[in-house]
Amino acid sequence: MAVIGHVSLVGAGPGDPGLLTRTAIARLRAADLVLYDALIDERVLKYARRAQRFFVGKRAGRHAVTQTAIHALMIRAARRGRCVVRLKGGDPFVFGRGGEEALALQHAGIPYDVVPGVTSAVAAPELAGIPVTHRGVASAFFVVSGHDDAAFASAIAGLEPNGVTVVVLMGLGRSAAIASHLIDRGWSRGTPAAVVVDASRSRQQAWRGTLNQLASDGVEVDARGAGTIVVGQVAAMGLSTASAREVRRVAGGQYVRG
Amino acid sequence: MAVIGHVSLVGAGPGDPGLLTRTAIARLRAADLVLYDALIDERVLKYARRAQRFFVGKRAGRHAVTQTAIHALMIRAARRGRCVVRLKGGDPFVFGRGGEEALALQHAGIPYDVVPGVTSAVAAPELAGIPVTHRGVASAFFVVSGHDDAAFASAIAGLEPNGVTVVVLMGLGRSAAIASHLIDRGWSRGTPAAVVVDASRSRQQAWRGTLNQLASDGVEVDARGAGTIVVGQVAAMGLSTASAREVRRVAGGQYVRG
Repeated sequence: MAVIGHVSLVGAGPGDPGLLTRTAIARLRAADLVLYDALIDERVLKYARRAQRFFVGKRAGRHAVTQTAIHALMIRAARRGRCVVRLKGGDPFVFGRGGEEALALQHAGIPYDVVPGVTSAVAAPELAGIPVTHRGVASAFFVVSGHDDAAFASAIAGLEPNGVTVVVLMGLGRSAAIASHLIDRGWSRGTPAAVVVDASRSRQQAWRGTLNQLASDGVEVDARGAGTIVVGQVAAMGLSTASAREVRRVAGGQYVRG
Repeated sequence: MAVIGHVSLVGAGPGDPGLLTRTAIARLRAADLVLYDALIDERVLKYARRAQRFFVGKRAGRHAVTQTAIHALMIRAARRGRCVVRLKGGDPFVFGRGGEEALALQHAGIPYDVVPGVTSAVAAPELAGIPVTHRGVASAFFVVSGHDDAAFASAIAGLEPNGVTVVVLMGLGRSAAIASHLIDRGWSRGTPAAVVVDASRSRQQAWRGTLNQLASDGVEVDARGAGTIVVGQVAAMGLSTASAREVRRVAGGQYVRG
């Protein structure tokens, strides 16, 4: 009987360790090796107390480690009996190449599981007071990656303009081009738009305006941040949800109003 | 100085308490009152040890409590200084009327926050081995509610057939009608489709087939279950992720293969 290791593809959520699931925390605590992407919060990694931690994300637009090398690292470690956590921002199966990693593990005969995470596609707008769906405003939402021009154009070509909420992940550096493309495709220039950067973290910022403003000016933000673009009537909603700081104040206690 | 309470709109995720976030657990532990929907797992409610628990969901298609009454309950309890958790399946802002509840709280001047949850739109397919996005297969996904015929038809009318992944939430009882509608709209009869019931729970089931089979036969399932329908080429992917039971076996340990 051969003892072999195990790989968990784990979603880390948008950043705040409070948005880790209980199972994600259990996997991190049990891990011998954590392979993590860019934008994973240091406070999240701290749960992996006894693990070797290895950064395999992108730095300055370049992959530190190729996808094939990530597969090889996971497989080799599991064959040596180690518990591996492949830690990804948001959810592992939303634009994370998690499906490819699962396939590689399956082909190699490595036992693995997938731990869903809180996706930024929903949580980033939500934490800025924007519901992706809202009765009478948006009855569906469309999630697309903005990191590649051609892929974005191809995906968005199948969606009728000015209808449902559009959420663009990984498009922060290309926000002006994305907005221009939507206007060219027929979206109204006055369509509300929002950009949420570093959702759930203490440095969370939200920009709000119209698609036209976004196309003209883009959004000036810290380029290191994770960003989510929301386009549609819901982006004009400004639900004044408590900030992360306020939330900590009220956690487990009462709110005092002067 | 008036001491007032607080309301948290909390996402409970798809069912498994392991998919609760750390913040959701903290809110439940601190709650004096929990207002919960149908399909919330009993093991999730157990975290609200000291809270009064009140079911406000649908039973046999009828609302036990009207939306207006839910708003009034939350506001009244908060004004009496109580910590209220409004607990919703999945994420609060994905078809949960969470936006309406947030607006009602805001209008009433009640401090509140929103705790994002793991949405079944992504997690249910994922736990059945289906990534909603996959390189070369689906570069975007569209999430829509299936519970109302007209709203579904209107939302789906803006989407070109046979492109991105379509995820239908709350459409379990109408799966045959939904599949027929997609075929009428131009989706190929052979498009892969899957239905995942009670995702993340020990009784999780997944049906797989084509849109045509779904339209002809529907899916026979326990009508009490929560169901997610996935349509698109990714639905043919059968990643053999470990089942919930296997996951418990490997948690924190090694996997033994014979």
